[in-house]
Amino acid sequence: MNVLLIVKYDGSNFSGWQRLSHRRTVQGDLERVLSKLCRQKIEIKGTGRTDAGVHAYMQAASFQGDFQIPLDRLKIAANKMLSDDLYIVDIREVDENFHARFDCIGKTYIYKILISKEKNVFSKNYFYNLKDNLNVDLMKEAAKSLIGEKDFRSFMSSGSDKVETIREIYKIDISEHPDQRLWDGQYQCQDKIIQIKVIGNGFLYNMVRIMVGTLVDVGSGKIDPDAMNKIIESKDRSFAKHTAPAQGLYLEKIYFDKRELEESIKT
Amino acid sequence: MNVLLIVKYDGSNFSGWQRLSHRRTVQGDLERVLSKLCRQKIEIKGTGRTDAGVHAYMQAASFQGDFQIPLDRLKIAANKMLSDDLYIVDIREVDENFHARFDCIGKTYIYKILISKEKNVFSKNYFYNLKDNLNVDLMKEAAKSLIGEKDFRSFMSSGSDKVETIREIYKIDISEHPDQRLWDGQYQCQDKIIQIKVIGNGFLYNMVRIMVGTLVDVGSGKIDPDAMNKIIESKDRSFAKHTAPAQGLYLEKIYFDKRELEESIKT
Repeated sequence: MNVLLIVKYDGSNFSGWQRLSHRRTVQGDLERVLSKLCRQKIEIKGTGRTDAGVHAYMQAASFQGDFQIPLDRLKIAANKMLSDDLYIVDIREVDENFHARFDCIGKTYIYKILISKEKNVFSKNYFYNLKDNLNVDLMKEAAKSLIGEKDFRSFMSSGSDKVETIREIYKIDISEHPDQRLWDGQYQCQDKIIQIKVIGNGFLYNMVRIMVGTLVDVGSGKIDPDAMNKIIESKDRSFAKHTAPAQGLYLEKIYFDKRELEESIKT
Repeated sequence: MNVLLIVKYDGSNFSGWQRLSHRRTVQGDLERVLSKLCRQKIEIKGTGRTDAGVHAYMQAASFQGDFQIPLDRLKIAANKMLSDDLYIVDIREVDENFHARFDCIGKTYIYKILISKEKNVFSKNYFYNLKDNLNVDLMKEAAKSLIGEKDFRSFMSSGSDKVETIREIYKIDISEHPDQRLWDGQYQCQDKIIQIKVIGNGFLYNMVRIMVGTLVDVGSGKIDPDAMNKIIESKDRSFAKHTAPAQGLYLEKIYFDKRELEESIKT
């Protein structure tokens, strides 16, 4: 049987997605619990990896197995065994040829920035914390250069083995959430949240974090919005110097369905 | 010199306020850093203790010291040394006779409940997580019985050495925050937050958590709203059985000024 797994997690206490010996990882926790319940070694294939500290509202993985336990009971039993920061949203049988990584046609990432003059004791694991305000208009201007099918080599961290570096970015939305939306005291009146949403057909290693870091440098006035084109054209990582921290990054959605992806791009 | 310290903290990774050997506590962290910077042993006196996992938007403490470093520089230097989950908001000289505990005339606590059918991976440390909806009208009805100067012995955890158990509750506000206020994806559309705000002149050990636990039992239909009076009159802890978890509790405000307290009760 070929199975699709949809999960979400708070990445704060994980050393990322990928299985590692002696470290707690999302893949490791899921495989341990599923192997126990299915009484066989289960190896899951994610749509991609997330780094330590990166969160997921939705992440997907697939695995092959030949086991007795019905999938609805497997979900309930596995969720009881998993810690509070990892949850299986859905688990269902899929076509024999389905593979979470190769059938993924797009992803949405959200990046959250908290602007606060004073240190916010609650935000360390969930935001990129900045003291000074950013010019969102300049950031929106610069983001336009990132839209389309391009060679994003300058937005890839070294250490990646990716050879093919052309990706398509469908949409970037940058929004501000001033104090009246920060209602509950956790984030205070003088604080402001800036949220960057990126939809693309795929992402290179650290690509969203380097894009956000560069957009922050535009918003803080360190570089001009029109420098973005030069950075892309350079195809040289040393031009995009600033990688935003993992803590602000959330994998929001995985697309396997073309219509669903188009819907997300339109709205 | 007599000094007043205003701090805030995310209680998730502290074993509470009170200094303990071999455990990380708020008082312990503050004393270590202040002693180092003031080059003398500093012992701070809090307005009260908070348990492991309880958060504070505002907590106060006072200490005596005879040191050279100016207070504004002490604040900056101490905040650089403290971890990201603890922050000194203010540090200022006060009258020789001031004592954070004895001069505190009131406190506001906030308690946060998250109602969510599915496990929310982000809320473990910050909410009391419940699956089933609560009847807030019944809870408001029951809360009326808690207002006023009463003997709150039945709302005190055993193990407390408090002899005097009369306290005055000035106000209890229970509010619902439905999905449109939970904008950022962390708390999803089907989730609902219930927030309970309690202002009083003082609180017994675990008093807010036992009050909230009892209100939750009213909201879930386990007990009638008019049972609240009987529980108070019993003066017996075994009548109020349910202590809500520490994670949902936030110390919101400490009052040393009568007008400020009256203002908070009025609004």
